[in-house]
Amino acid sequence: MINIAVAQSGGPTCAINASLVGVFKESLKISEIDAIFGSINGIEGIIENHLVDLKSIILTNNDVELLVQTPSTVLGSCRYKLPDWHEDEEVYKKIVKTLKQRNIGAFLYIGGNDSMDTVNKLSEYFRNISLDVKVIGIPKTIDNDLCITDHTPGFGSAAKYVATTMHEITRDSIVYSIPSVTIVEIMGRHAGWLTASSAVLHAMGETAPHLVYVPEVSFSLEGFLSDVRQEMSKHKAVIVAVSEGIEVPEGVQSGVVDNFGHKYLSGIGKYLEDIVRREIGCKVRSVELNVMQRCSSHLASKTDIDEAEAVGSAGVRCAMEGQTGKVMVFRRISETPYTVVIETADAQYIANNEKYLPDNFINQSGNNITDSAIDYFMPLIQGDISLITEHGIPKHFAIHESVLKM
Amino acid sequence: MINIAVAQSGGPTCAINASLVGVFKESLKISEIDAIFGSINGIEGIIENHLVDLKSIILTNNDVELLVQTPSTVLGSCRYKLPDWHEDEEVYKKIVKTLKQRNIGAFLYIGGNDSMDTVNKLSEYFRNISLDVKVIGIPKTIDNDLCITDHTPGFGSAAKYVATTMHEITRDSIVYSIPSVTIVEIMGRHAGWLTASSAVLHAMGETAPHLVYVPEVSFSLEGFLSDVRQEMSKHKAVIVAVSEGIEVPEGVQSGVVDNFGHKYLSGIGKYLEDIVRREIGCKVRSVELNVMQRCSSHLASKTDIDEAEAVGSAGVRCAMEGQTGKVMVFRRISETPYTVVIETADAQYIANNEKYLPDNFINQSGNNITDSAIDYFMPLIQGDISLITEHGIPKHFAIHESVLKM
Repeated sequence: MINIAVAQSGGPTCAINASLVGVFKESLKISEIDAIFGSINGIEGIIENHLVDLKSIILTNNDVELLVQTPSTVLGSCRYKLPDWHEDEEVYKKIVKTLKQRNIGAFLYIGGNDSMDTVNKLSEYFRNISLDVKVIGIPKTIDNDLCITDHTPGFGSAAKYVATTMHEITRDSIVYSIPSVTIVEIMGRHAGWLTASSAVLHAMGETAPHLVYVPEVSFSLEGFLSDVRQEMSKHKAVIVAVSEGIEVPEGVQSGVVDNFGHKYLSGIGKYLEDIVRREIGCKVRSVELNVMQRCSSHLASKTDIDEAEAVGSAGVRCAMEGQTGKVMVFRRISETPYTVVIETADAQYIANNEKYLPDNFINQSGNNITDSAIDYFMPLIQGDISLITEHGIPKHFAIHESVLKM
Repeated sequence: MINIAVAQSGGPTCAINASLVGVFKESLKISEIDAIFGSINGIEGIIENHLVDLKSIILTNNDVELLVQTPSTVLGSCRYKLPDWHEDEEVYKKIVKTLKQRNIGAFLYIGGNDSMDTVNKLSEYFRNISLDVKVIGIPKTIDNDLCITDHTPGFGSAAKYVATTMHEITRDSIVYSIPSVTIVEIMGRHAGWLTASSAVLHAMGETAPHLVYVPEVSFSLEGFLSDVRQEMSKHKAVIVAVSEGIEVPEGVQSGVVDNFGHKYLSGIGKYLEDIVRREIGCKVRSVELNVMQRCSSHLASKTDIDEAEAVGSAGVRCAMEGQTGKVMVFRRISETPYTVVIETADAQYIANNEKYLPDNFINQSGNNITDSAIDYFMPLIQGDISLITEHGIPKHFAIHESVLKM
């Protein structure tokens, strides 16, 4: 009999708790697994021996269902980067102490690029000291920027939010008789996946978003203004989707000053809004989708949530088969009907790497998205989860604040 | 036989098109009504004789259902204030010309405070020139700041969005182990209704929002910082709801400079974020719910949408009974079960007035909301509409851009 531990790391998504449920439910089925420990605040919980017995917290089927529909990370999160163990072994010793004390034979880490670095380092270290603890990564990120895997859990729900909201913002923007520009700032760090997903509206016959700027294409203010002017000649209300990660003149994104000496406390959307106001002089506003794009679980994609749970379950099986240092990945084997299989990849190839939009997903002008991209996005946003509500509001599963504190 | 005209005005909501559907469906039932004209861009469409025959655009039951779930104003909107006709009769003459030419016997205006000013002025003018055109106001505003009526269509859906999203932001905010403050900026102009609605989470056992600042209470930065520090001693992640309309040091809201000489391009949330960062020095962020709070029809309250349609229908009946210069209002006659009746009020008492949160809805300290307020909000956010989707995204009804242009 062994115990297992699971932790969640990095930025919140709508699907991380579904992966936790996958780990939990699969572990319950496996007779060799006794306790299922949740590590509080990612790897920090293992380091500090701050674990909770999940069976004592997730008590009923209703709890499980609530957990699936709860956004963010119910076990807390962290942004902790392990040092190279050749240089600093101290924290590794703490981790080993906890694992041994708790008789943990497998550690499942749900996270993004940085967390897969932890999976890679820990599995290497354990191999080196001959400690039989399997380490498996369960991917998640709304940025969809993990290598090898077709896509990442969390992305589909974020994309569904972005497309739905962009649709509604389009309706909101078109009402007045004067020409206007609406700039929607979308997350995704250095990759344009999430911003590009707003273009699925084109499949619904919408002309919006009329312009889409992603970090994969070098951005010029002159080109942007020229694009906006051209779209304004065709549409009364021009809708622009822009990635938070596009590169603009130095100093803007760092929040210092722009070329014009203005201080910008906000992001790229607000910056471009001001440029349009000054240079074109029309009605203009910017909308930052902010954390809502990663935590709006009321709009979660069923495909995404189901896959997130499946990949959590698969991770447990993978560990019990004796694998370690692996990350669970999706391979898309058919577009119609959409079919994926879950496979494994070495964590070292996923850790600290980023995957960008391929060239054929971006149009020739570099200011919009192609049909190939829309075909890729479409299956990921399908289906709705049926929500348990209370007082008209979706309910959440939460661990009491006092448990989350050290 | 007469024709009728309907128009939509002011800021978008999720329920304005439901009121349009109410007008449309009721008019179809009444044999004395022939054509149902939609005026493009509010009263501007009447002035410019820019009308569309709604029967030629809304063709099927499916169109009607789509229209109900479409946010914003399908006929466009305006921010047009009629002059006093004693001083400037020119535009009134244009209006009369259109009404006579199109044989319009009743005009239904769906809008907020300003639109009810138009209802009042037009009905007075028509009485004065003995023109038999009835003018009826159908209220809407997410601000919920219209006098006399218990609440306004559009508010319930916005409140449901605010509460649901605040719930999700709370989950998102609590994940890291370091103390943090999250400031959520909410619309509502000079009234705190929408901001206060975020406190319905208390009924679900949430401690968030821990602080709620509404324009009805005078705001002090010192008090705010003291409140935040006190909540930080109790909660790791402090969640603050703040109205866009609270009064802060001069110059901030006007976008010029604050006391510290900084230029603020954003709203109050960003301003307070910066104050917390400087004075308390903890992790802090601000989230502006922006236009999403008024256009997220995927989260519409069924109660709100049904009432919006009912009040549109009632407006037509009211006009056909020969009333004019009236606004349709709700009176809540029972809390349990929640029951409202639709009545009429004179437009002159609603036009250009605002209704604020009553004292008993605000706590003694002036920094949170009472249970009485929550009891008031709760029935307004109940129920979900079943959405027609395409490609995983709620569909919308839209009139072609070329029709909306003059």
